[in-house]
Amino acid sequence: MAQTITPRGTDYAQWYNDLIIIGNLADYSAVRGCMIIKPYGFALWENMQQQLDKMFKDTGHSNVYFPLFVPKSLFEAEEQNAAGFAKECAIVTHYRLKSDPNKPGKLMVDPEAKLEEELIVRPTSEAIIWSTFKNWIQSYRNLPLLLNQWCNVVRWEMRTRLFLRTAEFLWQEGHTAHATAQEAIDETLKMLDVYTDFAENWMALPVIKGKKSAAERFAGAMDTYCIEAMMQDGKALQAGTSHFLGQNFAKAFDVKFSNKDNTLEYVWATSWGVSTRLIGALVMAHSDDQGLVLPPKIAPIQVVIIPIFKGEDTKEALNTVCLNLYNQLKQSHIRVKLDNNDNTRPGWKFNEYETQGVPIRISIGSKELQNNHLEIVRRDTKEKTLIPVEDAFTYITNLLIGIQTNLFEKAKVFQQQRTKKINTLDELNTFLDQEPGFALIHWDGTTESEEKLQTLTKATIRCIPLEPIHESGFCIISGKPSSQRVVAARAY
Amino acid sequence: MAQTITPRGTDYAQWYNDLIIIGNLADYSAVRGCMIIKPYGFALWENMQQQLDKMFKDTGHSNVYFPLFVPKSLFEAEEQNAAGFAKECAIVTHYRLKSDPNKPGKLMVDPEAKLEEELIVRPTSEAIIWSTFKNWIQSYRNLPLLLNQWCNVVRWEMRTRLFLRTAEFLWQEGHTAHATAQEAIDETLKMLDVYTDFAENWMALPVIKGKKSAAERFAGAMDTYCIEAMMQDGKALQAGTSHFLGQNFAKAFDVKFSNKDNTLEYVWATSWGVSTRLIGALVMAHSDDQGLVLPPKIAPIQVVIIPIFKGEDTKEALNTVCLNLYNQLKQSHIRVKLDNNDNTRPGWKFNEYETQGVPIRISIGSKELQNNHLEIVRRDTKEKTLIPVEDAFTYITNLLIGIQTNLFEKAKVFQQQRTKKINTLDELNTFLDQEPGFALIHWDGTTESEEKLQTLTKATIRCIPLEPIHESGFCIISGKPSSQRVVAARAY
Repeated sequence: MAQTITPRGTDYAQWYNDLIIIGNLADYSAVRGCMIIKPYGFALWENMQQQLDKMFKDTGHSNVYFPLFVPKSLFEAEEQNAAGFAKECAIVTHYRLKSDPNKPGKLMVDPEAKLEEELIVRPTSEAIIWSTFKNWIQSYRNLPLLLNQWCNVVRWEMRTRLFLRTAEFLWQEGHTAHATAQEAIDETLKMLDVYTDFAENWMALPVIKGKKSAAERFAGAMDTYCIEAMMQDGKALQAGTSHFLGQNFAKAFDVKFSNKDNTLEYVWATSWGVSTRLIGALVMAHSDDQGLVLPPKIAPIQVVIIPIFKGEDTKEALNTVCLNLYNQLKQSHIRVKLDNNDNTRPGWKFNEYETQGVPIRISIGSKELQNNHLEIVRRDTKEKTLIPVEDAFTYITNLLIGIQTNLFEKAKVFQQQRTKKINTLDELNTFLDQEPGFALIHWDGTTESEEKLQTLTKATIRCIPLEPIHESGFCIISGKPSSQRVVAARAY
Repeated sequence: MAQTITPRGTDYAQWYNDLIIIGNLADYSAVRGCMIIKPYGFALWENMQQQLDKMFKDTGHSNVYFPLFVPKSLFEAEEQNAAGFAKECAIVTHYRLKSDPNKPGKLMVDPEAKLEEELIVRPTSEAIIWSTFKNWIQSYRNLPLLLNQWCNVVRWEMRTRLFLRTAEFLWQEGHTAHATAQEAIDETLKMLDVYTDFAENWMALPVIKGKKSAAERFAGAMDTYCIEAMMQDGKALQAGTSHFLGQNFAKAFDVKFSNKDNTLEYVWATSWGVSTRLIGALVMAHSDDQGLVLPPKIAPIQVVIIPIFKGEDTKEALNTVCLNLYNQLKQSHIRVKLDNNDNTRPGWKFNEYETQGVPIRISIGSKELQNNHLEIVRRDTKEKTLIPVEDAFTYITNLLIGIQTNLFEKAKVFQQQRTKKINTLDELNTFLDQEPGFALIHWDGTTESEEKLQTLTKATIRCIPLEPIHESGFCIISGKPSSQRVVAARAY
């Protein structure tokens, strides 16, 4: 039985959840705040992961794996970082269960199996990695060290939402070590560019690159850079961050190298990450009231072919046409599915693949067969076209590119329409309440004004754009002079 | 400075550790029993993982991701499984740290942030997965469900060894649900065949397929099948397991489906897994006193090319020859590295790549250049050959296949030489002490005799071979009649 998706206009948050659950991306689990990524959702993540992994390797990074656990003494070594994550971490205190004498068949924590030192389930791995770098880095010849790992992390969030904010999530975390500050800053910005490239050219998600304010910085970083995307409700979503960590972790873990002049110096660091949160961004950026809309470049199924059988006489001929096209597309490495399952009606199938956001649906019935035509429906615009069978392959390969481009352009236009220069608090509140988006405002650069802004508007400063909007003006909060506009928005 | 590998004959266990550390596969971490997989080791794991993943997908399985944590009440639901893992699991009891009032700058577990229900860090995922299957499976139309996940698991082992036995390890765990017992048994055996194919044809590791005795069965399984490999010291290593779980988990979590006759039945289950332990097997099966020996099909670097510069006059010409060959190999998707780094001497490089087990090393100096020759050294036999430059590409592609075959054949011959029919306890102890391997013994099938065997010889019954060695005889322990020999060995 087909489940119904709540329309965006009725309840945006419910629409989002419906897309995830009915679109078969993920499910709730028995563990508070943790979700299950289902086959379709995981196939999407694999496509994203493989492309990102290629980009990391092409920029010289190697994958590694560091332990899940961080001993408390290491966790607390870089104090700012520790303070930033202390309030939301899962802590392992015991290593054994035993039979509960009072409840037959049940288990209890064995009080005798208490760890001497508690282990923190990693919320991020700077601490465990930099405690190791001490052994790996002695000389400038060991630098740069360009590492990445794909793994799970845990942050004990109180309010969770599928993909956007879960207690456990999957991510990649890049960790690099450098001989100079400049080299580390260059790396930080290079990886921000990689994320931008991926978001825009693979996820069809236009983003603004910027630097975070001091208050929004990663705990332990000197500077945090980010890419900010706009969702269809006009809210901002931070889609990736890249941190210049300075020498903070090198100092906390005493990681020094001898430079070319044989002098000891602390090592410079970066870290950068994107997570399964990106799937939340993807869902909210492109989907509609009928279901998911996925960009062809990362869609698990790019094309679905559905023969429409009416009686047995044309069945074989229909299957043959479909199978030929299937093989042709498959050979060109297009992710194609042929659904000639007899037990399900075409209408049900159409609905299913629409809900799942398959970019192109191809169908053929007896009438089309007679005219040697295929019906091709694109998911993004729902436009239907009849195409001669012999032209289908070329049409489809072009259409995949067309859909990818269209999704990006549409999102870009939306982002531009919803990005406005705003000069007063009243104007800002009206903007955020009525047709929200990115407000370009003047800000005096102080944390005090930033906090007031949040209290008065529920918006935060998303970033100071890297392509600066130089313009003199006055801080929307304090009235003090400002030389550059920043991006403010309500955010996920 | 090159570190020295302890010879096998001097200290086998130290030789193994040296290979891992000096060969750059892994490192110790600050967390008890957990290791760090370094870039070279992780590249090896990625090659193994990608091939296995392809094999799983080719046999119809989809990847998913289930939570890291298992609530205690779910963990204990299948009692045998729970009992099997209770003594070695990491337990999360708290979700917050706070500043320690007695130690400025330090953190302590916040006693107010105690979880209502403890969370077990998954040692395996049957419990969390089958608690979910209850919601996913209603009808025979939902079956079979063929899932797999790549993830980390934690088992609090007391004595740990790099790759072979670590508190945290990476693995894949397949979990499938079926309508009939026969279908589940077929799946169990199919995945055992996939593991055998991978071990033999990719890792060059000959294995014996068999069924475990009741005592060695996976906790919660009806039958456990395994592949057993032989290491160079004659010890056995279990390289993969595939479990027929019967309806145990379906009953524990009340997972029923309505069959075609509309009757409710419990679902049948399998699970199967291989882990980073395979890297330990790989290392011990093929390596020698000079370092690692890796099979070409999964080696991170298959071919290394090293020009030997003497003076500036031939440098450009040497580089050109090397670069041409490099490009030619690269285009054929051979994993090739060109090391023309000026700062390191050739002898040092030769040693480095030998230690790391690179299957083929190619070098060229002025003399070879003059004769238009390359020197090619294969890692497995250390044989050197001079080959005309124009023949190099064909020679190398053939040699990669040749090395792969040779490693398998060599290991196979060793396994056969060290597999012996043994009829008395004295004979068995002599065999195990002097030139150990797989002892084919008669066993009466009882756990009692199996336990005595272990006490008296430190050997365990590794498996009852699937290709049965039918033969009447008498149990080596009890003297009772037996109709089939089983494989006994000391094991990792």
